[in-house]
Amino acid sequence: MRVGVLTGGGDCPGLNAVIRAVVRKGVAEYGFEFVGFLDGWKGPLENLTTPLGVDQVRGILPRGGTILKSSRTNPFKIDGGVERIKDNLAANGVDALVAIGGEDTLGVAARLHAEHGVQVVGVPKTIDNDLGATDVTFGFDTAVSIATEAIDRLHSTAESHDRVMVCEVMGRHTGWIALQSGLAGGADVVLIPEQPLSVERCCELIGRRHARGKDFSIVVVSEGWPLTFDEETTGEVVGSADTDAFGHVRLGGIGERLGGEIERHTGFETRVTVLGHIQRGGSPTAHDRVLATRFGVVADRLLTEGGWGRMAALRGGAFTDVPMADAVAELKSVPAELYAEASGFFG
Amino acid sequence: MRVGVLTGGGDCPGLNAVIRAVVRKGVAEYGFEFVGFLDGWKGPLENLTTPLGVDQVRGILPRGGTILKSSRTNPFKIDGGVERIKDNLAANGVDALVAIGGEDTLGVAARLHAEHGVQVVGVPKTIDNDLGATDVTFGFDTAVSIATEAIDRLHSTAESHDRVMVCEVMGRHTGWIALQSGLAGGADVVLIPEQPLSVERCCELIGRRHARGKDFSIVVVSEGWPLTFDEETTGEVVGSADTDAFGHVRLGGIGERLGGEIERHTGFETRVTVLGHIQRGGSPTAHDRVLATRFGVVADRLLTEGGWGRMAALRGGAFTDVPMADAVAELKSVPAELYAEASGFFG
Amino acid sequence: MRVGVLTGGGDCPGLNAVIRAVVRKGVAEYGFEFVGFLDGWKGPLENLTTPLGVDQVRGILPRGGTILKSSRTNPFKIDGGVERIKDNLAANGVDALVAIGGEDTLGVAARLHAEHGVQVVGVPKTIDNDLGATDVTFGFDTAVSIATEAIDRLHSTAESHDRVMVCEVMGRHTGWIALQSGLAGGADVVLIPEQPLSVERCCELIGRRHARGKDFSIVVVSEGWPLTFDEETTGEVVGSADTDAFGHVRLGGIGERLGGEIERHTGFETRVTVLGHIQRGGSPTAHDRVLATRFGVVADRLLTEGGWGRMAALRGGAFTDVPMADAVAELKSVPAELYAEASGFFG
Amino acid sequence: MRVGVLTGGGDCPGLNAVIRAVVRKGVAEYGFEFVGFLDGWKGPLENLTTPLGVDQVRGILPRGGTILKSSRTNPFKIDGGVERIKDNLAANGVDALVAIGGEDTLGVAARLHAEHGVQVVGVPKTIDNDLGATDVTFGFDTAVSIATEAIDRLHSTAESHDRVMVCEVMGRHTGWIALQSGLAGGADVVLIPEQPLSVERCCELIGRRHARGKDFSIVVVSEGWPLTFDEETTGEVVGSADTDAFGHVRLGGIGERLGGEIERHTGFETRVTVLGHIQRGGSPTAHDRVLATRFGVVADRLLTEGGWGRMAALRGGAFTDVPMADAVAELKSVPAELYAEASGFFG
Repeated sequence: MRVGVLTGGGDCPGLNAVIRAVVRKGVAEYGFEFVGFLDGWKGPLENLTTPLGVDQVRGILPRGGTILKSSRTNPFKIDGGVERIKDNLAANGVDALVAIGGEDTLGVAARLHAEHGVQVVGVPKTIDNDLGATDVTFGFDTAVSIATEAIDRLHSTAESHDRVMVCEVMGRHTGWIALQSGLAGGADVVLIPEQPLSVERCCELIGRRHARGKDFSIVVVSEGWPLTFDEETTGEVVGSADTDAFGHVRLGGIGERLGGEIERHTGFETRVTVLGHIQRGGSPTAHDRVLATRFGVVADRLLTEGGWGRMAALRGGAFTDVPMADAVAELKSVPAELYAEASGFFG
Repeated sequence: MRVGVLTGGGDCPGLNAVIRAVVRKGVAEYGFEFVGFLDGWKGPLENLTTPLGVDQVRGILPRGGTILKSSRTNPFKIDGGVERIKDNLAANGVDALVAIGGEDTLGVAARLHAEHGVQVVGVPKTIDNDLGATDVTFGFDTAVSIATEAIDRLHSTAESHDRVMVCEVMGRHTGWIALQSGLAGGADVVLIPEQPLSVERCCELIGRRHARGKDFSIVVVSEGWPLTFDEETTGEVVGSADTDAFGHVRLGGIGERLGGEIERHTGFETRVTVLGHIQRGGSPTAHDRVLATRFGVVADRLLTEGGWGRMAALRGGAFTDVPMADAVAELKSVPAELYAEASGFFG
Repeated sequence: MRVGVLTGGGDCPGLNAVIRAVVRKGVAEYGFEFVGFLDGWKGPLENLTTPLGVDQVRGILPRGGTILKSSRTNPFKIDGGVERIKDNLAANGVDALVAIGGEDTLGVAARLHAEHGVQVVGVPKTIDNDLGATDVTFGFDTAVSIATEAIDRLHSTAESHDRVMVCEVMGRHTGWIALQSGLAGGADVVLIPEQPLSVERCCELIGRRHARGKDFSIVVVSEGWPLTFDEETTGEVVGSADTDAFGHVRLGGIGERLGGEIERHTGFETRVTVLGHIQRGGSPTAHDRVLATRFGVVADRLLTEGGWGRMAALRGGAFTDVPMADAVAELKSVPAELYAEASGFFG
Repeated sequence: MRVGVLTGGGDCPGLNAVIRAVVRKGVAEYGFEFVGFLDGWKGPLENLTTPLGVDQVRGILPRGGTILKSSRTNPFKIDGGVERIKDNLAANGVDALVAIGGEDTLGVAARLHAEHGVQVVGVPKTIDNDLGATDVTFGFDTAVSIATEAIDRLHSTAESHDRVMVCEVMGRHTGWIALQSGLAGGADVVLIPEQPLSVERCCELIGRRHARGKDFSIVVVSEGWPLTFDEETTGEVVGSADTDAFGHVRLGGIGERLGGEIERHTGFETRVTVLGHIQRGGSPTAHDRVLATRFGVVADRLLTEGGWGRMAALRGGAFTDVPMADAVAELKSVPAELYAEASGFFG
């Protein structure tokens, strides 16, 4: 069997580890041949290929990024896109595809399989941990680790200098990174999209700490937290979903704006850190390397079994597979009870 | 309710995070009072106590070690030990105990409950990941991370200088740390107690790499791997369980001896790293801090429910509780299939 | 001799290491007694003291922040401030002071000595490396390390996803952190206050890389870089010195604004990271711990010699002392030749 | 000018950064062409070459190891070795060489220049910081950082569990790594070759801590510390310079043996960590990357000036050059006064 591999969407530590696992095990155990498609779906669309064998995956396990590069190209939005993909797969003698990516990438894969019979299996990827179909996936642990290390550092400077420190972390639709890093770092207030405390409530929590004699606070905020005010105060609800000239959501904005509001409301000196893409770059944690490798093993199994339209998943602590359509169906939010339990440790 | 807390056995990153969680949630949510017993079971035995409230647990979340210190004291091996413990608990007005520890510490707790009616709940602890009653516990991820970082570093020097690098990691009875860090670090040979490859087989694997043109190898070995030789060669099987004058197993020995054998058998320059206690010291990973906090939450719930003789556990990805006796009953070994699957990525 | 110690100004990894060194050596070798003044100059002003002996400095060597806390209080701006300080020193039986801080803190110390005869020695502190009187001081290496690690992470994500990554680092008046971390991290464009390339020039450098087939760029920018445009294009020069309602310069602004301009000028997707205070919090590097300790040794020597009005310094690789007034006199800028030499490695 | 580059001797973080700097600046500024010789002096001896241009050095700045690989081959010990080198240089059209290495590699370079007129410049390399001709060189800061991080981790476990922790670090002839990491990590006893305290003295220092109520100790020992006993006790002096079957000094031995002696003398449970080659592998610190880059700049300057027989050096904080013969002439030991000053902070 000749297998194409591609990675789509945003960066996520562990992508290379998946590629390596798929290729190493596929070659050694099942005798597959592999070809890499570059730049996500743009690869099979424009026939951008690269050799992909055991030699190409050597040494990439600890590396961030993806040797196959990525893009957000969607062939269904391009006239004749699907046909070009099918032609290019045929031209390269490719029998099956492994698509590694998030909601969008796997959404394309699911439709290519369901509507056009393309033989494709998937590996789910999300830094934000917001795919309902799997307990967790690679990259999330790395992001949480980096955010926690930043919160640790902010603690020492906050404690010594009586300040409010705002740390903006990733999470457009869900607050998983904020919640876990806030819990691991001992944050005092954690603001997430699913449980959007208002600015006033945030400042009240800071004020209570102050009243208890603690003159510093660490606030962790998801980039997707809506800057919310209590209705009776201003009636204003400013969404964070400002988009820039290129149509993508602006990073960094919410942290800065929140910091300004905290200073205005509390009078406490406030400083802002915006972690941005350092959360999704660089070497994956050991945890994520193992997870990514195991997901790759499942993908190879799906290839041998003809599990087209399915993707690797971790459910109840066990590696298994589920329909790719599931990955797209359902956003996994932070449950209210979990946020409530965690809140007992904030402040 | 007045609750005593103690930590027993070897160090494990996350102990402080458990103590903090138990105390913070216990005070805020359930109105418990706490008292710390120092030095494991020696604390209630010799009435070594320390104040333990919200102030005492401030700032300890990211810290390694345990503010309650530890020991390997076993009250059942001391004449009148159990009575002294019961007297001291009574003298301190302690209604219930939280025992945080491994097989030995929880074994004592289980017997104190079963045989003497002491109201005790447990939190399992093992750096080695060898407790059958829980999927995983805190400290293991930190140990694997540290070992993986070491293997990463050894890679660059091995690659540049044509060497065999031996890295001895923890794991007296099980190979979990070796397996996971070997997988995460891209090791070439992984030697564990459960699947004890012989020295000759290890050297054969190194030789094969050499034959394929790769002139370096990374060998990860559990401290508990028995230095085994093929019968037909020497008939010699040297156990690693040498004990020193104080009756504890000698660390470090197996790595050095293996390195010597590899040089002798292959003629390749071999260097040895013995990670020792750096694997169980220092700040826990974000993953372990969250895990430890969640285990603390379960312990508090057990206290409120009167779940005496039970301990926190993670089963199938969910936090739950199990009888403490289970922790002692069963050693969780690396399954043969998992080792076989992982071996596909070694070499 | 009874000696007061205080730390003033912003946080800087290594402050605790200085305090520890001054106290440990002072007690053991010279028989000094110490008292800690809290919150910088506010301590002697308002008689905020804390015990400071060998016990208090135990375990603080690797810790960020300062156990003596800090402030930006300036007694010369307070009516009767100097007299209150002198009274409080006398009331505490303090013969001499060790002032650890930057330009402002040491400026106060220098005047207290010169104009009011207070027996004070200094230890210079600047995360920005901008004190002319010393080759380097503690904290800078830590800040550069943290910024470099961030740039490393941005590299992998930039390479895989064809982006411009902007990383805003500290440095209000000088570009040392940007220059060193840019050099260590392999940045493509480095924008510093002393050599303010325009936005257009920055975009031209990015464009050239693109023309050479490299579709990602890392831009490191000092927070103090003035957002400059070529006159003929817009005539606009927007300073970064916006101040907020509390009179301090706004962090984070310049990175975000630069990112927006790069997107506007080049059309490349641009992402922004604002490291903020994580650069000055947390555990100091080994290098900074040793440096801080050695500066503490010099401070003790100055105390024994009556070197009032002088401070520790590193000159030409040797530990020595200089008048504190020197620390204030001269800002150490990045020399044009050094920037030019480094620029050979950017892009 | 066509320039050959080679790296010799043991691994050292920063080698790739030097190669990159020499090539990037050499190509861009001086129009040099480069060729890489593989495996140290074995490369020009056996004509092992590799292309070396701007493309080959891309992305290597943060990487440990050396893309040119290394060896300890000495052409002066091989019949006709020098002639073969001269022939191969001529055959490759190589006008000049950059030799990056330690005492041995530079010793060969110095003789090739002095005795055979080979046009060679050098860049000094030593993880141990023991070259007299330069204040410091790259790799040392990385080694000290890694050792300090290990000592930090040992602290938390030692404190919690009443133990003696022995940490063996690199340093065959000098104690620089032990001294600096011991100072940065807050070690209690530091044993170095230059100031060889006896086992009994070491145990006495541990005992004194115990008498002061501290029940743990961290002992840092250079691999080259001679296991020394007080004459009156045993008369025994066991050197650490045991060599194995391949003639190289055995790593790891001294730490294990010291640990055993401490247990025997004090009765305290003792644990041993042998850092080994993790100290010289992996990514260099920011500090070492900058240092390595600057050394590369000096090497290029020497090439343009015809500074044959000279090498880059850092003297009194300034980058300069010195005769290569100096690197070989003089071993830089830890001065007695520096050890004495540092000892004030141990224990």
